[in-house]
Amino acid sequence: MNLGYIGLGIMGKACACRLLNAGYNLYIWARRPEACMELASQGATVCGNPAELASRVDIVFTNVSDTADVEEVLLGENGVCHGARPGLIAVDMSTISPLATRRMAEKLKQYGVELVDAPVSGGSVGAQEGTLTFMIGATQETYDRILPVLKPMGKTFTRIGNVGDGQTAKACNQIAVAGNTAILVELMRFAEACGVDLAKVREALLGGFAQSRVLELHGKRILDGDFTPGFKATLHNKDMNIVLDVAKEKNLNLELTKIASRRIKELVDRGDGELDSSAVYTLKS
Amino acid sequence: MNLGYIGLGIMGKACACRLLNAGYNLYIWARRPEACMELASQGATVCGNPAELASRVDIVFTNVSDTADVEEVLLGENGVCHGARPGLIAVDMSTISPLATRRMAEKLKQYGVELVDAPVSGGSVGAQEGTLTFMIGATQETYDRILPVLKPMGKTFTRIGNVGDGQTAKACNQIAVAGNTAILVELMRFAEACGVDLAKVREALLGGFAQSRVLELHGKRILDGDFTPGFKATLHNKDMNIVLDVAKEKNLNLELTKIASRRIKELVDRGDGELDSSAVYTLKS
Repeated sequence: MNLGYIGLGIMGKACACRLLNAGYNLYIWARRPEACMELASQGATVCGNPAELASRVDIVFTNVSDTADVEEVLLGENGVCHGARPGLIAVDMSTISPLATRRMAEKLKQYGVELVDAPVSGGSVGAQEGTLTFMIGATQETYDRILPVLKPMGKTFTRIGNVGDGQTAKACNQIAVAGNTAILVELMRFAEACGVDLAKVREALLGGFAQSRVLELHGKRILDGDFTPGFKATLHNKDMNIVLDVAKEKNLNLELTKIASRRIKELVDRGDGELDSSAVYTLKS
Repeated sequence: MNLGYIGLGIMGKACACRLLNAGYNLYIWARRPEACMELASQGATVCGNPAELASRVDIVFTNVSDTADVEEVLLGENGVCHGARPGLIAVDMSTISPLATRRMAEKLKQYGVELVDAPVSGGSVGAQEGTLTFMIGATQETYDRILPVLKPMGKTFTRIGNVGDGQTAKACNQIAVAGNTAILVELMRFAEACGVDLAKVREALLGGFAQSRVLELHGKRILDGDFTPGFKATLHNKDMNIVLDVAKEKNLNLELTKIASRRIKELVDRGDGELDSSAVYTLKS
């Protein structure tokens, strides 16, 4: 089976590499040609544009920055739709709007292309180790077809529902991470004000109902004062903008989510967008 | 060694029962005499008041509703202080204010009584099974002395720091649970508005960085629509009032914690204080 991979940032490159190592014929394209070099030296075929790539593959993956980028590589000039053979499946691993995903799926249908949303969590380490968590929006039939191909990249796969639903789950994931982090910061402020050892509080809370992965991992980052990403605040900020846009469109008032998002934005506006988003701890309260 | 147990509600009775079964001579007192009957039939000695009880034991446990109740049984008329032999250790398992705990510790010192705060998490099931999580405020020496006696009641023991620090950790625990629950409700509102299967979202999120015990257990309660406590909203509301009082005294602005607390209070004000606090999900947003 021939696979295509478009978008070779930290996440995309690591995932494409795992597909290549799993033995697939891999066709690649990235906006920056230099991003293709390493994979090309390992046997991947570099294509001139997304349309050319699409003409040579059965499944194409996209992993780019935002909604506009996904639209460009799928539906823009020289986009996937213009080269695709009917029956092509486009699996978008970017984190973008669920509503935009559904709109693009409708358009791609006219070209015989089926769009699947498959955003992930697990970060660059998960991508390198092939342990990503996939949240997938696809028909059951398509899900069953692509699952074997996804396997080299991930550990946990959940078909949330049909197209767009994977992005909804990812948005929920980002709400939970942003919100639990903001709460973690508040409980640490409380403990500090009472003069209590934060490491002991973290240790005790991990043993009970307050346990969370955010308390475990971001708690450690905060104690160590080490905000090396992890997951960059700029990207979390982008994801929270998707959440807030959808919430607005659906007339939802998500009070805590709004505050948690605002804190991440403050961090980015301060010029610290390259830090892990847990660095919201360093903002003045 | 002779032990005393004051306060035989659901939590107190279960803990006292485990001490009795571990072979200790147990002296008991409760405001409602009928609460003593079951333990008395199993061999516990019922005392006339806290002072009388204190005169017969080496360590006395208190497990009552709020700060005023703890003050009453420790320092009130016929309170523990009036009967205590010098060197008595009073271990308070109630959840009350860390600041009030420190003030009471100072007063009890004048009677030769050492106050230890040892609030727990794990609920009635944890109490019955002896798997509670203890957050302890005591000197290292006192901690080492009481630990063997606590063992029949709990599984995880953390000495947070000196007196009052256990209550601070417990307050942090309640902030995390209230906050993570409020965030869970918001992400479920988001998923519902997008027409996505909540069970699938929960399943996917449990596999990644969004994982938390609140998502696991409260998520299940919300999906099942079963708000049998668990942990009653009235009690969570009481604990959040402690948090907000301390925050006020320390000039802390805990934005998310305030909103999460308000939601729990709304539930209680609506007349649903006997439900599990995860029933905040049923409030109109």
